Amino acid sequence: MKTRACSRRSFLKTSAFAVSAFSTMTCTASSAKDPNFIVIFCDDLGYGDLGTFGHPTIRTPNLDRMAGQGQKWTNFYVGASVCTPSRAALMTGRLPIRSGMCSDKRRVLFPDSSGGLPQSEITIAKALKAKNYTTACVGKWHLGQLPQYLPTAHGFDSYFGIPYSNDMDKVARVEQKEWENPKSEYFNVPLMRDTEIVERPADQTTITKRYTDETIKLIRANKEKKFFIYLAHNLPHVPLFRSKEFEGKSNRGLYGDVVQEIDDGVGRILRTLEKLRLAKNTMVVFTSDNGPWLIFNELGGSAGLLRGGKGGTYEGGMREPTIFHWPGRIKPGVVTDLGATMDLLPTLCTIAGAPVPDDRALDGYDLSPVLFEGKSSPRDIVFFYRGTRVFALRKGPFKAHFITKSEYGSDNEVHHDPPLLYHLEHDPSEKYNVADKYPDVIADIKNEFNKHLDGLVPGEDQLAGRLE
Amino acid sequence: MKTRACSRRSFLKTSAFAVSAFSTMTCTASSAKDPNFIVIFCDDLGYGDLGTFGHPTIRTPNLDRMAGQGQKWTNFYVGASVCTPSRAALMTGRLPIRSGMCSDKRRVLFPDSSGGLPQSEITIAKALKAKNYTTACVGKWHLGQLPQYLPTAHGFDSYFGIPYSNDMDKVARVEQKEWENPKSEYFNVPLMRDTEIVERPADQTTITKRYTDETIKLIRANKEKKFFIYLAHNLPHVPLFRSKEFEGKSNRGLYGDVVQEIDDGVGRILRTLEKLRLAKNTMVVFTSDNGPWLIFNELGGSAGLLRGGKGGTYEGGMREPTIFHWPGRIKPGVVTDLGATMDLLPTLCTIAGAPVPDDRALDGYDLSPVLFEGKSSPRDIVFFYRGTRVFALRKGPFKAHFITKSEYGSDNEVHHDPPLLYHLEHDPSEKYNVADKYPDVIADIKNEFNKHLDGLVPGEDQLAGRLE
Repeated sequence: MKTRACSRRSFLKTSAFAVSAFSTMTCTASSAKDPNFIVIFCDDLGYGDLGTFGHPTIRTPNLDRMAGQGQKWTNFYVGASVCTPSRAALMTGRLPIRSGMCSDKRRVLFPDSSGGLPQSEITIAKALKAKNYTTACVGKWHLGQLPQYLPTAHGFDSYFGIPYSNDMDKVARVEQKEWENPKSEYFNVPLMRDTEIVERPADQTTITKRYTDETIKLIRANKEKKFFIYLAHNLPHVPLFRSKEFEGKSNRGLYGDVVQEIDDGVGRILRTLEKLRLAKNTMVVFTSDNGPWLIFNELGGSAGLLRGGKGGTYEGGMREPTIFHWPGRIKPGVVTDLGATMDLLPTLCTIAGAPVPDDRALDGYDLSPVLFEGKSSPRDIVFFYRGTRVFALRKGPFKAHFITKSEYGSDNEVHHDPPLLYHLEHDPSEKYNVADKYPDVIADIKNEFNKHLDGLVPGEDQLAGRLE
Repeated sequence: MKTRACSRRSFLKTSAFAVSAFSTMTCTASSAKDPNFIVIFCDDLGYGDLGTFGHPTIRTPNLDRMAGQGQKWTNFYVGASVCTPSRAALMTGRLPIRSGMCSDKRRVLFPDSSGGLPQSEITIAKALKAKNYTTACVGKWHLGQLPQYLPTAHGFDSYFGIPYSNDMDKVARVEQKEWENPKSEYFNVPLMRDTEIVERPADQTTITKRYTDETIKLIRANKEKKFFIYLAHNLPHVPLFRSKEFEGKSNRGLYGDVVQEIDDGVGRILRTLEKLRLAKNTMVVFTSDNGPWLIFNELGGSAGLLRGGKGGTYEGGMREPTIFHWPGRIKPGVVTDLGATMDLLPTLCTIAGAPVPDDRALDGYDLSPVLFEGKSSPRDIVFFYRGTRVFALRKGPFKAHFITKSEYGSDNEVHHDPPLLYHLEHDPSEKYNVADKYPDVIADIKNEFNKHLDGLVPGEDQLAGRLE
């Protein structure tokens, strides 16, 4: 395997296919031997829902501390504003359109779906297997619940979790009032261990705690090995559940209780790593799959100063509160450069010295120069897909909206020509359209848009099909 | 002078006249001898404009560190959503209606105003004089520019600054484009030393730096004494100016440059205190006078997740990013309890062992039990005045809006009966009216409203009069 140095960022910027061109690159800057990785992924957590990201009443001392010790990324994106495609993007380092994990017919997978993440895709877990990582998935999967799509078929040694959203398999219509104080019995979701259902309906009141417990157990069991743990909480997606210990704990109400229990779990995980002397050899990443589900009002989160939420292509739908933590390795600070969940695959592979897949288009960039050397990010483009189409595109500080539509309303799409243009660094709330001022920027973004579509080979739609 | 212990919070909660009932209280918990006070007050800084309060691109490492080492208050209010009355509230510990420092004719003082803060008022500086504090005002005053209203007539030993807003004394109409790159010459504002004009127009490009320099000079000169310095920056109020060193420094553009220069000044002040070994004996408070001036678009700040801005009675107009810092004395953490600038007078007096004025109604509470003992705040009410009338009232987590009106629009007032009711701890963005659910809360708030009006003696309008 060839080894290249980490200094090709300018070239990496030029193409969505960039990483594959350096597929066998192992970063010489990565000096720690056998690092571990833990990726903590929330569900529907808003950009503004952590203390360090500005929430006034949700208390997240563990995440605040994690951000203070590590890097707080304030311009970090997901691959889609809803669950399934966002998770596919994280797992594969590719836009969901390439794997067929987005659709204009159904926005996510459902319990009756026949599709899932194709076997031909290479997940982070599968990629790290080249370096003999122990790999575990804990929590929500939502990339297909048939055996051939489950984590254990995608490079994970083990799986423990609810395989899709916690509001699925409803036993009856759930009335407004019941969402405010839900019962696990309303949602007949399975809890699985590997490929077997071990509990149904899953007791959701203890699910966050049990996911954390499972993660800690995995850390202990693998402390002599190198491991990758993907901890994907089912919460704070509605219905909101928390354990007895967190009932009424937050001033923010039920939603705050739930986030505070997740924060507590993060603290427990970090303390476990410290106790086992693994902290200095483990990178922990925290983020979420998409913005807050605003149609649930107080039961949904807050995107902070960002516009919009889950389901839409304004910033609130796809920018997430993100923290990278690795004491002694990651230079602490605030990173305002661009990053995305799709960057995790090439970044983790590079750090681990595992080959980055080179036989396919990748949309991720290796972020290790930002993490370890204080360099600027190789990413300067973000695509805002809704279903199979690009609704908006960010390049550098500018974002152009070609199409807008409310997140879950029955309104028609609005097509914009010229597109709406926002300077996100000056105007993160997307309030002041500056299209008039920057015709050249619009031309450049249109060019990027066309270049992207030219090279695009969409995968077969995995979300539309239903079991017979 | 009688001395009482600090444990009367429950009684303190019961009345706006509470503090005066304990006028001669000196807090036995205040063990540090001769503490110094520095109050740093910004102009039009929004709730969301600091890194630690969630801004994605404005970098405020000094304020972030200050918040981490001290207390970050997330529910801290000012006395009015515009400049003059807000400053009167801070200086006197009283609602502006009592001193006549608010009006329904003119919202603030102008260079042609004949009025100002009455001599009968007791400012923080005057109150601390009882304990022989050296007192200095640096920056924007805006409580009257005639000699009898200037800081030197209100208990300050010295004054250096622009006596009102930096956009006043316009030499001609300033066009939209010119606000984006203003010149000091457009605004013929005076820079004063004590009661003399020393520069006109003030060179605003260096004003933030000079205010910081002056503060540092005062700290050095008084390092053997005890001092109170009120540093009231004229910025980030438009027109936006920053020194050469900060030009283009922030991704957030001109506004960001300005905030980052203020942040840099905070860092210089804190480092000076450390170098002189005064840090452990000095409480530094950072906050702002009102929310961001949204009608200036990108040139105005951001209220983060809060609704509205300067000039209005939604949260964005009157809740400010606030930090208390005193290493070794203040218990670090996030405080979600209520506080207000009006609490500074009784708090500082209590800490200093100076008598709190007992011959008048005060609206402030001593916050030292929160700062030093981790106790809950004595404040549970906030009045949202616009001019001389209460538009909204917060009690505990609930806020009732009786009247709403856009900040600067020509729309008519809307009177609400029942009032709009928001649960601010669950819904800081004031999105979900819950009036239907809580008739008892509304009744209780109406009762508070009436109680307040019953006991109110408005001062003579100081803002309406003009020089002949």
